[in-house]
Amino acid sequence: MSEHVDTGVVERRFDVTIDGEVVPGIIWAPEHQAGPTPVVLIGHGGAQHKRVAGVISLARGLVRDAGYTAVAIDAPGHGDRVTNPAAADELMALRGRIAAGLRTGSAVSGSPRDADRWAAARTRAVREWSETIDMLGAEGIVAAGRLGYLGFSMGAAIGLPLIAAEPRITVAVLGLSGVPPGASALEAAARRLTIPVLFVMQWDDELISRDDGLRLFDAIGSRDKAMHVHPGGHRNTPLYERRTHIAFFERHLGH
Amino acid sequence: MSEHVDTGVVERRFDVTIDGEVVPGIIWAPEHQAGPTPVVLIGHGGAQHKRVAGVISLARGLVRDAGYTAVAIDAPGHGDRVTNPAAADELMALRGRIAAGLRTGSAVSGSPRDADRWAAARTRAVREWSETIDMLGAEGIVAAGRLGYLGFSMGAAIGLPLIAAEPRITVAVLGLSGVPPGASALEAAARRLTIPVLFVMQWDDELISRDDGLRLFDAIGSRDKAMHVHPGGHRNTPLYERRTHIAFFERHLGH
Repeated sequence: MSEHVDTGVVERRFDVTIDGEVVPGIIWAPEHQAGPTPVVLIGHGGAQHKRVAGVISLARGLVRDAGYTAVAIDAPGHGDRVTNPAAADELMALRGRIAAGLRTGSAVSGSPRDADRWAAARTRAVREWSETIDMLGAEGIVAAGRLGYLGFSMGAAIGLPLIAAEPRITVAVLGLSGVPPGASALEAAARRLTIPVLFVMQWDDELISRDDGLRLFDAIGSRDKAMHVHPGGHRNTPLYERRTHIAFFERHLGH
Repeated sequence: MSEHVDTGVVERRFDVTIDGEVVPGIIWAPEHQAGPTPVVLIGHGGAQHKRVAGVISLARGLVRDAGYTAVAIDAPGHGDRVTNPAAADELMALRGRIAAGLRTGSAVSGSPRDADRWAAARTRAVREWSETIDMLGAEGIVAAGRLGYLGFSMGAAIGLPLIAAEPRITVAVLGLSGVPPGASALEAAARRLTIPVLFVMQWDDELISRDDGLRLFDAIGSRDKAMHVHPGGHRNTPLYERRTHIAFFERHLGH
């Protein structure tokens, strides 16, 4: 493990090994912290990784504004778990889907084969997060009942089955995701939710149609849920909204 | 004018007289305030009045949390401008519409005659707010560019044409309102807006269908707009959301 301190925030690398495969992660925590704080797990988006700019600034905000600890891991096939050329190909493909917008008729993934591959990766990612939570508990980093999850886009698609299956997560901020009409695994996961959820949507998202996004919000089973919508595309959620997400965690996980 | 001070909040009655008709209002301001503060005008809902519980607690929150001044007036045919039996009839009618929900097929008002009466009251209300703003400027209570409006339900239906026509209002929080399909005066007013708007919607509103609410948000012409949606009926917006509304004004009107 390496450790790095910057203006009150300790950034520490860690690895969790599952079936011989290394899942690399980062913990951001307040300097001079003794004992557990509320923890927020951050699920990065597709073609991103655990240390992309949006994850870092959210993680540092959670530590500095709320005194929380933040944790991110590379999703299957992302970050340190993929070669640079493969990651570049993925990013190009994602940019292509954004440029094509919804005119392709598909939401995020392409062919049925892609969908199968993606479902397997999602199942794997859920298990990796659960083992990461085991580690956080074993190391005394998180206390029972004080664990949240935040994920947008792919991070929401992984987060939905994760928080539906994982009772240790008690509050979530999800967004930039949707479900198509009819039954789907994501919609079923959403219906099982009971924890407070803030759902974030972009009104002109090039990847998620309005109807699919609204259908996902509608499906979320939680009594305490909220939806925040802003105009603009998949990457245009206003920066000020980050403060709202932190406040949502503070309301449910305490200070 | 009468004046009353309670835990740092000065509450002062005022009247604006227009064409011989008295429009009664209230100003809530910080005690010991010298000079203008940002001001938020509060438009109450149908069958309510300037001193209903929701208006008072929002006004006191604006003064105590943000150091702002808040102003409310009785809408045409409401509060001190109507007899108690007539106000009670109006409240019963509104409760009846809520109980009937959208099964009546109408949004808020009933017959075409009601709609005409309502359009005239709205036009009158817009003029009354403008003259109230004149008075606030003349008395040195508001400074240029530091004026916001908040209104839900009837307060939003009055607020839309008001803020579309009134350049002195620079930010607004509106909600619990909608527009039916096709052209309407409210939709046209929404399209003319350019100021930052936070639109608040209830997902299971008995008076406003989802489609009509979403259509209103979509029509708002402002680049800087946001929509916050919560589950439950017309009167179930969570109390914590009030803090978000105040923060929205603070972001645009300053501290």
